Amino acid sequence: MLDRLERILASSLQSKESQSTLTCSPESAARLLVTFTRGLVVIERVYQDTDRLKATAASLLDILIASRSDL
Amino acid sequence: MLDRLERILASSLQSKESQSTLTCSPESAARLLVTFTRGLVVIERVYQDTDRLKATAASLLDILIASRSDL
Repeated sequence: MLDRLERILASSLQSKESQSTLTCSPESAARLLVTFTRGLVVIERVYQDTDRLKATAASLLDILIASRSDL
Repeated sequence: MLDRLERILASSLQSKESQSTLTCSPESAARLLVTFTRGLVVIERVYQDTDRLKATAASLLDILIASRSDL
């Protein structure tokens, strides 16, 4: 299931527009997102804190998407 | 335990040298590392593939440490 999710993500991130904004390859980004979201599930279970989850996800997007970290 | 790990990481990343190379704040980096490593544990259990874990961890460091992604 995770392999399939990773393939779908990588393929969605292959577009020229995505590639120009990503700070790494679409394949790396897909793998990072899959691994990171598995971690979020663990953190959700431990803290049950929606704001914390959102802030952590936003932090990943900030370093994964160049234009966000330039803001 | 995760809170303690996050505090130790954030405090280690507070040095001027660390801050100048990180692509986000030490606090965000610490939280990302804690969440991400929880995800790595899940991926380790699913795939039991050391190379995959190392590659995924390297991908995170590439986008977390500015000088690495410039290489």
